[in-house]
Parts: sequence; C-alpha cells; structure tokens
Amino acid sequence: MTQAHGYAATSPTTPLAPFSFERRAPGPQDVAIDILHCGVCHSDLHTARNEWQNTVYPSVPGHEIVGRVTAVGDLVSKFRPGDIVGVGCMVDSCQHCAPCDDGLEQYCDNGFTGTYNGPAQGTGANTFGGYSDHIVVREQFVLRVSHGEADLAAVAPLLCAGITTYSPLRQWKVGPGHKVGIVGLGGLGHMGVKIAAAMGARVVLFTTSPDKREDALRLGAHEVVVSKNPDEMAAHAGSFDFILNTVAAPHDLDAFLVLLKLDGTMTLVGAPASPHPSPTVFNLIMKRRRIAGSLIGGIRETQEMLDFCAEHGIVSDIEPIRIEDIETAYERMLRSDVKYRFVIDMDSLRHGAAASSVPA
Amino acid sequence: MTQAHGYAATSPTTPLAPFSFERRAPGPQDVAIDILHCGVCHSDLHTARNEWQNTVYPSVPGHEIVGRVTAVGDLVSKFRPGDIVGVGCMVDSCQHCAPCDDGLEQYCDNGFTGTYNGPAQGTGANTFGGYSDHIVVREQFVLRVSHGEADLAAVAPLLCAGITTYSPLRQWKVGPGHKVGIVGLGGLGHMGVKIAAAMGARVVLFTTSPDKREDALRLGAHEVVVSKNPDEMAAHAGSFDFILNTVAAPHDLDAFLVLLKLDGTMTLVGAPASPHPSPTVFNLIMKRRRIAGSLIGGIRETQEMLDFCAEHGIVSDIEPIRIEDIETAYERMLRSDVKYRFVIDMDSLRHGAAASSVPA
Repeated sequence: MTQAHGYAATSPTTPLAPFSFERRAPGPQDVAIDILHCGVCHSDLHTARNEWQNTVYPSVPGHEIVGRVTAVGDLVSKFRPGDIVGVGCMVDSCQHCAPCDDGLEQYCDNGFTGTYNGPAQGTGANTFGGYSDHIVVREQFVLRVSHGEADLAAVAPLLCAGITTYSPLRQWKVGPGHKVGIVGLGGLGHMGVKIAAAMGARVVLFTTSPDKREDALRLGAHEVVVSKNPDEMAAHAGSFDFILNTVAAPHDLDAFLVLLKLDGTMTLVGAPASPHPSPTVFNLIMKRRRIAGSLIGGIRETQEMLDFCAEHGIVSDIEPIRIEDIETAYERMLRSDVKYRFVIDMDSLRHGAAASSVPA
Repeated sequence: MTQAHGYAATSPTTPLAPFSFERRAPGPQDVAIDILHCGVCHSDLHTARNEWQNTVYPSVPGHEIVGRVTAVGDLVSKFRPGDIVGVGCMVDSCQHCAPCDDGLEQYCDNGFTGTYNGPAQGTGANTFGGYSDHIVVREQFVLRVSHGEADLAAVAPLLCAGITTYSPLRQWKVGPGHKVGIVGLGGLGHMGVKIAAAMGARVVLFTTSPDKREDALRLGAHEVVVSKNPDEMAAHAGSFDFILNTVAAPHDLDAFLVLLKLDGTMTLVGAPASPHPSPTVFNLIMKRRRIAGSLIGGIRETQEMLDFCAEHGIVSDIEPIRIEDIETAYERMLRSDVKYRFVIDMDSLRHGAAASSVPA
C-alpha cells in the first residue's frame, strides 16, 4: 500500500476537500503513475454531487489523467519508469467477454471499472480517480502519450472529451468528402470540431450562441450555424453525412435530423437528465436516417486517438487551475464559462494551498 | 386514352364508390396491365379519409397490385403481353438524382410518384391506384412475378408489406446466426416473420396479444414474447442483433431498445400519428445502439424480394374480398380483425356488384 493524497467529496453537498487514502502496491501487471494533470469533466461534478444517484462516498473524481510512470510490475512490458502516460475513464474490465475481446472494454458485458466511483472488478470496491497525487493502474488500461512536454496539461482532456468524440467519428467513417455537423461548442464539441477537421471532413458547428462563431472558426470549423435561426438551418436540409450531437440539455432533435442526407446518422454522446422531446419517426423513415449513441471508446481506439492527435498537433483548449479552486471551476463550468476545459495542475496538490488561481 | 373503372373516395367522409376515369394510352416505355388483385394497405384508408391531410380527391387507392400485361410500348424490352407482373407504391421517380441512380427511388431527391395520390413527375397530376380494372406504368416500375397462378392474390401484399419488411432486414444484413425481433403481428409483422425466418435468422415475435402466439409460431417465429410481460421481456435483455418494429401506435421504444445487443439496431417502419414516448438516450449510449427508419424499398430490391419470396414459397396470408365490400374491410382493419391482409379480387369490379363477400 502507498499513501495517496487527493480531493474528495464526502456528501452531495460537501465541497471537495483534501483527503488521504491508500493505493494498492503495484502488482506484477500494474503501472504506478505520478499524476501531473487531471482534466475536469462534467461527469466529475455529477458524481461529486450524486446527481446520478449512484455515488459512493468519499468520492475522488477525475478521469482525464496525464502522469509520469514511477514503477512497473514484473510482467509489464509496454511501460517503464519515466514514461509519460494517460489514464481515461476506465481502469479495468472483465477481459474475457465478447466486447472486451473486440477492444470495446467500455461496453464490457460485466461492466467496466470506472477510474472513479468503481466498482472494481471482482472486489466491488470503490475506486478513486485523478484528483490525487498518484494512481496504480493495470497495464492494459494505461495509454502512451507522445505529445511534447509543453502540451501535457492540454492532452489530459483527450482521455475523455477527445475519445468520446473521436470514437463515433471513426465508427461512422468520417473523412474527406464528408460534411459533418458538431452540435454544441463545449468541452466535447470543441474536440469534435478539431478532430473531424483533422479527419478531412467539412465541419459545420451548430451553436445557440452567435458569439461563439469566431472561436469555432479558429478551432477548425469551416462554417458556423446558429441553430436558433430557422433560415440558417433550412439552408442545410438533407446535406449532412453525419452529425455528432454533444449537447446533453434536452433539445429538439428533429431540427438536426432533417439536416441529414439519405442514410445519415446523428450520434448522441450526451445523456440528458430529462428526456429530449420525442423525435419524429417520419424524419427517420423518409431518408432512412439513424439516431445512435456512443460511449467514450475502447483502450485500443483511445491509443489510436492519442496518436492521431499527436500526429495532427491536436490538444484541448484549456484553462489550468489549482486543485483548491475546483469548486469555483465547477460553478463556472455550470455556466459554460470555460474555454473549453479546466485542467488541474497537480503540483498544486503536492505543494499545498496558495492564493486562488481561478477568477470566479 | 382508355376508359378505366375503379372505386374512389370523393371526400374524407364519403364511402368509396364506383368511379370512371381515363388512363393514358401506353407510351413507348409503358406497360398496360389488367389488374387481377389489389391488396388493402392501411395507407389506403389514411388517404381515402385524408388522415394525412394531403389527399387529392377523387382518390383511387391501392398500391399492392398484381396483374396481367395487355400491351407494351415499342421501347419496352422486359415485358410482353400475357406476363404476370406487380406494381407497388411507386410508378415513377426523377431517374437522375443520386438515390435514383443507386436504385433507391423511394428516396428520390425530387420525390417519387406514388401509385395513387401522385403527384406525377413533371405534370404534378394526381395518380389513380389499384382499386381499378387496369393501369399504365412505365417499364422501370413494373415488377416480374414468378409465383404460380394459384398464389397471385397472396402475392399482392408483397408489393408493399413485403418490401417494407424485406428492405430493412436486408439493409441490416439479417441472416443465419442472427437473433431478430419482429414487433407486432399485423400485415407488416406477419411478412417480417416469414421473411426473417427464410433469411435464416432466429425470429422472436413480440405481441401484446397472448392469443397470437400459436399463429406466430405457425408463420415461422421460433419464439413469441408477450411484450406486456416484464419477465418475458427481461429474459431477452441485450440479446438481439436487430429488431424490426412494425407498430405505428405510440408505444414505449425503450422496452425494445434494451433488448438489443452491442451495436444493435431497431428499425421503425410505422410512423405514429402522435409521437412515441421519447426514448432514453442512455439506452442508446450504453451499448452504441441505434434507432433507424426505413421506407418501402427501391425497384431493384423489390424485384429481389419478389424473387426471394417465390424461391422460398412465401406469400401473404390473406382474406380475399369483393371491391364493393371495401368499407367493411376498412372497418375490420381498424379493429385489426384480419389475418393478415385483405386483397380485392378485381373480377368483382369487372362483373359488377353481388352479395356481400365479407362478414362484418
């Protein structure tokens, strides 16, 4: 066992606060990692505040982890101390079901082990995430990071926001000659724009906020459509090969379905707390369109995504924060007041509290 | 011009009644067909009664047509007088858009011409359907029927109910080793059961009516699940490759979505008048499931379906009626009191009214 230090929520209404706990000593297949950066995902907030009614307290969130290997087990072959690595939303799965055999651990028939809020395979124990100084993860769930040192904080969000958008874009074979819509310009959407553009597609960003137009173009969108403007929307009717919808707030799906061409798909990656208005079946039937879902990505595909992003110079647009400012960051995230991801600099945990780093 | 005789609705509230009108003389690419049988589709009733608010009166319904060729134009090469042929839901399309080029005339970018209720390509004129003694159709929209003479009445429903179920089963590559669900045992559902079974899939029929169990097994289902029974449903969770949902009445889609395995698709072929309850996005995300739509099928695929059905001895289960009993048939159809399709014997039109043939 090693002593770990992090930040935990101890109840739905308690602000995150310093928390000490134990990590297992690295086993033969384990990699021990000092955490350098951890992105702040909306799921962290949902879990800290028990908004999905499944939180086990104390809860240490964080699943967009970049760190440096400090030790490896005897059977570990892919990593050695000093390597820069990533850990995403999963730290284990059954490794023997059909989805696991296919590299789709996120759909493990026996349930993958979340990086936080478990339950761990076999024991059912709670797991503690990346808002902490170190973590121990089995080799199969550790990713190689080949970005340069200067980019590492901005790499962290790739481990969740990056793979969540990359996976459906790949599954639906987005590439040159395709017209792709990205709905919403937040943590997920801004990654979707960058990745879809790098895949060679023509990218149209849909937003309700006209003031995001300039930023979307800077991020790589070829065109921006204000989805509240019916004329702008109508001009794109029946023209999209694929739409990636990153908006979790309930909204009118039909407005986007009618923009798909024959056999077009809209993939949803956000699950709304209350349902979207029911989509019109007629819009699905008339052009054989599809609504699909997608959940993060498998480990093999996550590595592919990291390599793709390194090759194309893609990182997240981030705002670094100190860990003691996490609650302020949450409040700003709730107001969508972040471009486009907060990332905790874990040095702030190792070197203790300091003056607030994040303007409220 | 030739004088045609049929049955038409002249207003939403007028019973169908004898009606005379003109058909064009066959042009160089046309096939003239004496109609032998015409199936009765729910769309006929929707149109006769203007339930889709788009009916042009007078309206002669009918798009499940089997007949005998009486004359062909000079440029017609595939048919000759005496041939037994079929005509389905379409009699024309633009023939120059991308979907038409791909044999997907039902998704014609310029709108296909319905066999009834038009509008005709170019002229925008109304079209008159199969509740009539003869029809003139361009060669590209005429299908070859290779079933035996004794089966011809029961072949008619293949032209709509058959292709509507065959097309999505083919699109999603249903075959041996697949577990396929068919939701609803009506005109569409009973064709879906027969075709999916002939494709080699394991077929599970979902119905709200326990008394349909025996009939579903007779039609080829390997198993019947009463969808109102939560225990029966739960036993199939996450196990289906594909579900074909033929039920147009609003119902809980989630009950079926959770039965799909990873990457499973549920295709809807019925458009409800009021929306289904909104499906839960979580069920789509967690196993990368999909909801899709599908509309009849293209001409090439309709021919493939007819040939497939002839090869496998598949026809519709029908109840033949005389044309003067069409309103009684509609009323029984509204009560789902038909196994499983009414088909009009067009001799009843040629030989005038007689005693009622259909028990009310």
